[in-house]
Amino acid sequence: MTHETIIRQFENLPGPDVEAGAAVEAHEKNLTKPAGALGKLEELCVWCATWQARYPPSLDNTTILIFAGNHGVAKHGVSAFPSAVTAQMVRNFRTGGAAINQLAAVQDAKIEVVELDLEEPTADFTIEPAMSEPDFLKAFTQGFNAVEPSWNLLILGEMGIGNTTSAAAVATALFGGDPADWTGPGTGLNSRDIARKASIIRAGLERHATSIVDPLSALQCLGGRELAAVAGAILAARRRRIPVFLDGFVTTAAAAVLEKVSPGALDHCVLGHVSFEPGHKKLLTALNKTPLLDLGMRLGEASGAAVALGILRCAIAAHTGMATFEEAAISRKV
Amino acid sequence: MTHETIIRQFENLPGPDVEAGAAVEAHEKNLTKPAGALGKLEELCVWCATWQARYPPSLDNTTILIFAGNHGVAKHGVSAFPSAVTAQMVRNFRTGGAAINQLAAVQDAKIEVVELDLEEPTADFTIEPAMSEPDFLKAFTQGFNAVEPSWNLLILGEMGIGNTTSAAAVATALFGGDPADWTGPGTGLNSRDIARKASIIRAGLERHATSIVDPLSALQCLGGRELAAVAGAILAARRRRIPVFLDGFVTTAAAAVLEKVSPGALDHCVLGHVSFEPGHKKLLTALNKTPLLDLGMRLGEASGAAVALGILRCAIAAHTGMATFEEAAISRKV
Repeated sequence: MTHETIIRQFENLPGPDVEAGAAVEAHEKNLTKPAGALGKLEELCVWCATWQARYPPSLDNTTILIFAGNHGVAKHGVSAFPSAVTAQMVRNFRTGGAAINQLAAVQDAKIEVVELDLEEPTADFTIEPAMSEPDFLKAFTQGFNAVEPSWNLLILGEMGIGNTTSAAAVATALFGGDPADWTGPGTGLNSRDIARKASIIRAGLERHATSIVDPLSALQCLGGRELAAVAGAILAARRRRIPVFLDGFVTTAAAAVLEKVSPGALDHCVLGHVSFEPGHKKLLTALNKTPLLDLGMRLGEASGAAVALGILRCAIAAHTGMATFEEAAISRKV
Repeated sequence: MTHETIIRQFENLPGPDVEAGAAVEAHEKNLTKPAGALGKLEELCVWCATWQARYPPSLDNTTILIFAGNHGVAKHGVSAFPSAVTAQMVRNFRTGGAAINQLAAVQDAKIEVVELDLEEPTADFTIEPAMSEPDFLKAFTQGFNAVEPSWNLLILGEMGIGNTTSAAAVATALFGGDPADWTGPGTGLNSRDIARKASIIRAGLERHATSIVDPLSALQCLGGRELAAVAGAILAARRRRIPVFLDGFVTTAAAAVLEKVSPGALDHCVLGHVSFEPGHKKLLTALNKTPLLDLGMRLGEASGAAVALGILRCAIAAHTGMATFEEAAISRKV
């Protein structure tokens, strides 16, 4: 791939399957409840069917895909945890000890973890681009190719010590404003360290001011491999008609790159949970996305979206399992 | 029971078990995530343990309890559906065709439905008290006795054509303001019919102005059997150390009676979902309760709280299943 081949993947993106959506709405009217009484559950069911392009929608092959990367910028002490934790947490995902493993079990979803050259962190973006062009394209392609056409729903998450710094830098490059507007505590910085983190991001933006000419170059210069892979996976999911649940600040910053390349590129994505990380709310406003949940979570690793999956399961179970007024012999509205 | 024996049930209510809560907090610190990163999930886990008075908390015996009643006031056309639908929906609950049946299956909870003299609606409260004192005490006691000590968690809901009218009347009696402030579309009234519904409530409040001397008399004069039973069940759950998830407007109006009798009586209750019915948000503000979900649902039958149960399941699964930093050999915060 090159930047140009990525851009070509945005051509003729599949749109919503309005017939599948209409089939949901037609059946919904007959179910034993007042019209609209399940609120957003009804909307989610329409969304899922239109982007799966099938009726009835199904969640029997739901995958949580977590990309992990390491960040050169972490050497500036922008995280409360050392970089070694990225690989340690990947091992924790594989042995079933992380939060996401417990959440996936509750929600009946499988987990796939993709490590992206953890032993070779990206470059320190205050000095050079986080990724060379081949590095960036490799990570984007790994994300793209990780998505299997058989999946019904994709939940995207990430792990990478230092990556809220990369995400805030990408968000600033895409949407403007001061880096401080997009910078938060991540895994637990105090206010002095948050200010320092913002100044590191400011230095990165200044360093690459002339190189950042479009959304993809912002992602290459300031992002990380897991952000590039998340973007690739979202694009692949769209092409393969797989609806996506997005997780927190880092995942959404990566996703925002696609929307900036081509408005509407995230129409197949629902925002599972708005993070406690303050930049996330700003991103959602910029992307015009409403989260399903607001539970003060700030963990990444797809955890917020995994909790939200339960709402979609409820929505589809209600739609596909309820009796109709006729079947249950229930009187209609007077 | 008499009103006085109900009031005596409020004496020496069990409080939170702070040791169980402290046990959650002590273990939480060692789990492989930044402190506080699971946000409200961590708070829910503490809440559940303190009100179950056990560590670790458990949800393996979770029951959804739905009370159904019919309302004399329904003859004024305050609902979009005929009263016959109450019994028809009870049959739908029993045969597995309702929304709550599908949600309960997703959330691994069992359902119990209690019919409260459906063939004999309460009296029209614009003319006489909705319930005589024996009627009211019988319904309250049925609710109280329906709660089994072995349950780990109780999810409360209701069914009753016309019962948003009763709930709005009770809420006005408890918290004041004009009935129109508490009156909404219920199952789907238009704005003209909503205004008429408010005037029916106004007539009821005027009719019983001198009889309503305390929260219980408001519930007896204006409520319904399912509201009385919900109040009884919440009180029994507190005495039996069973935490409670409350559903929408009607359930919360019944619950509010207890809080008015004895502030703190709802400390063992979490609000699952804020209803689309506008009076519910006002009630939550009055009770100082924050809902877990806001999904525009307006169905009753415990549906909003049942969707929210998934969040509590996630919370407890994460707490009880995650590896510690030591077990996973993960570096601590620097």
